Amino acid sequence: MSHTTQINAKRLLERLETLAGRGALPGGGVSRMTLTPEDKSGRDLMRTWFEEAGLTVQVDAAGNMFGLTPGRESEPHVLTGSHLDTVATGGPYDGALGVVGGLEAVQSLRESGRDLPSPLGVAVFTNEEGVRFFPDMLGSLVFTGDLALDKALICLDADGIPLGRALADIGYDGSHTPGHVPVKAFMELHIEQGPILDAKGLSIGVVKGVQGIHWTEYTLSGATNHAGTTPMDMRRDALLGAAEAVVFARRLAGEIGNGQRATIGSLKVAPCLSNVVAEKVTLITDLRNADMGLLQQAQTMMEDEIAAICKRHGLESLAKELVLVDAVDFDPRIVGMVQEQADVLGLSSMPMISGAGHDAQIMAGKFPTGMIFVPSKDGVSHNVREHTEPDDLVAGTRVLAGVLAGLAGQ
Amino acid sequence: MSHTTQINAKRLLERLETLAGRGALPGGGVSRMTLTPEDKSGRDLMRTWFEEAGLTVQVDAAGNMFGLTPGRESEPHVLTGSHLDTVATGGPYDGALGVVGGLEAVQSLRESGRDLPSPLGVAVFTNEEGVRFFPDMLGSLVFTGDLALDKALICLDADGIPLGRALADIGYDGSHTPGHVPVKAFMELHIEQGPILDAKGLSIGVVKGVQGIHWTEYTLSGATNHAGTTPMDMRRDALLGAAEAVVFARRLAGEIGNGQRATIGSLKVAPCLSNVVAEKVTLITDLRNADMGLLQQAQTMMEDEIAAICKRHGLESLAKELVLVDAVDFDPRIVGMVQEQADVLGLSSMPMISGAGHDAQIMAGKFPTGMIFVPSKDGVSHNVREHTEPDDLVAGTRVLAGVLAGLAGQ
Repeated sequence: MSHTTQINAKRLLERLETLAGRGALPGGGVSRMTLTPEDKSGRDLMRTWFEEAGLTVQVDAAGNMFGLTPGRESEPHVLTGSHLDTVATGGPYDGALGVVGGLEAVQSLRESGRDLPSPLGVAVFTNEEGVRFFPDMLGSLVFTGDLALDKALICLDADGIPLGRALADIGYDGSHTPGHVPVKAFMELHIEQGPILDAKGLSIGVVKGVQGIHWTEYTLSGATNHAGTTPMDMRRDALLGAAEAVVFARRLAGEIGNGQRATIGSLKVAPCLSNVVAEKVTLITDLRNADMGLLQQAQTMMEDEIAAICKRHGLESLAKELVLVDAVDFDPRIVGMVQEQADVLGLSSMPMISGAGHDAQIMAGKFPTGMIFVPSKDGVSHNVREHTEPDDLVAGTRVLAGVLAGLAGQ
Repeated sequence: MSHTTQINAKRLLERLETLAGRGALPGGGVSRMTLTPEDKSGRDLMRTWFEEAGLTVQVDAAGNMFGLTPGRESEPHVLTGSHLDTVATGGPYDGALGVVGGLEAVQSLRESGRDLPSPLGVAVFTNEEGVRFFPDMLGSLVFTGDLALDKALICLDADGIPLGRALADIGYDGSHTPGHVPVKAFMELHIEQGPILDAKGLSIGVVKGVQGIHWTEYTLSGATNHAGTTPMDMRRDALLGAAEAVVFARRLAGEIGNGQRATIGSLKVAPCLSNVVAEKVTLITDLRNADMGLLQQAQTMMEDEIAAICKRHGLESLAKELVLVDAVDFDPRIVGMVQEQADVLGLSSMPMISGAGHDAQIMAGKFPTGMIFVPSKDGVSHNVREHTEPDDLVAGTRVLAGVLAGLAGQ
């Protein structure tokens, strides 16, 4: 049924290496925070490669940049892409692989001379990381219309610089209206940023969807007491209650199963003195599941347990919802195409759920969308030690090219 | 056998109120940090009361001030006292009761005309709280010779001011050699600073000793991981391990019993982000028991459990001993005299162990020593809400006067 698409592995890997030089950190890793001179440098490089590949380059008013099949700008595109911005101390592939691999797939398809009914395009979205400007995935949110452009442009960074000025400062305040590129389907190739593929020794993650996320901040209040003079049974120890919540969160994940994640990584103690029973602890529960029903069940169990803990230890609890993001299911037809391409190419693979956020989950709200993962060594990402083997970078790009061909051929 | 001693309750309560005006905080409470102008003001007031009572005032080179039966300075004294310094936001009775109550007991005994074989004295020790200068109980440590005077004088406060200069600045760099007052026995009247007497509705704590203290800092190290992408069974979550240690500490106290205290009040998480599995947690265990054998048993159980937790969750642990203070047993004969006085006066009482540190525990290393506790409302101390009922202030002082008479009469 499918036929495979040749890509230029050497060009792919060389470009990834060249791009990693833009914002390279002295000891390794990459720092290309959004709309900084380093980001401009990466964007400029990408723009030249788009032009080398014969693509038409367009930039919209949110700074999203597109390399499009020339002369067919008004037709629905099979679009692929990701982002070029990184966290402060990032690696060479988070985002970059989706852009450079996307271009490689599109360029190879063009060079193959195959006649594809739909035009192709590569997207570079602005501020995916959300480190300099909030929210993350800002560019794709504006592209889909989920975030108004005027609101996006007045987002401020920590120095009070609005996004609009930062765009103008690097010359990426484009003239196109965000969302101007018609999209038939969207694909994103990305590193897993988790340890599963690496641990299992597999090349391709067939991404079925993105976990829903529920963050709640709980403040547990008891009483400060002297650690020496206060009998154990006369204490209202907020840290004891918080500790029981942390232990429960782990048990909860096991009980719910089905990929449920439950993390308490933020926990602050007051007054935090060795000889004073803690009066107040603020912690944040981070619950994730691709099944929103199970996620709600986990949330309810956590709330009930914290209420029970507080009752047991004479504590008061204040809960505040911080984040609730719905799970995303990718287009089942596209998920099937990714699986099929991996199989046709003889690549080892598994279906999986994304635990991190991506531009694709925003695009999925409007367009048929899919994602392809390749392994992250030891699951490390947002870190200068981020690494993916060259073979896997190539494998993911080959799968992407095949899926794009399939989508554009229909 | 015993006869009771009348004290002047009105004078006692008025003096406590007057003294609380020295360093009074606008909204209530007292701030009389050691060797500040407020401390000088309190000391000056006390000196005038010593003189009014006909006592000879002497100050030693560590700033410890004594009011002594005149003309008998070279004989072994029955000494009582405490400290006048407070924490930054303290109450009117922590330390002050032992000094003002001590003077009231001594003055009443002198006014009673009873002929006592031993001279009496009231001590004001420097820097008991240890808030401005380290260590706490500095004055009594120098008095007993456990801390060399020259070392004490070069202790620096947070502004780099040495204790010696701070003493000179307020005119309390006395000429006497620390330890110059011969001591036959030492008694300290103090508020409990814990909730036991108040909760039980009792007036007098017959203090048998002071808990030993063992502080250990543990640093648990795992791995930072993404809360969304990292499966639960591939985590090395330092906060989960720390939480299990907190839960265990409470269980440990119950298992050891016998007044065992086990507190983790200081716990710091890194990186402390809601969507990142904690890499490192530093916590301090505060274990206390009056029985050093049980305290050692508790310490060993805690160490073993933390080792087991780390093994279970793939963590590494680094332990650092911070403090190990031996328990103190007060003189059994004096403990018996306190109990007897409470009984003779018809005051409700119970034997107890001090959970906090006091000058008396330092004095106990060299001299026959005892302590008397009176209730702290809700166990609150080191706080502007610190309160003890007038009846209890009077009751404790009456017990003290009786015990001093007994000790001086032998």
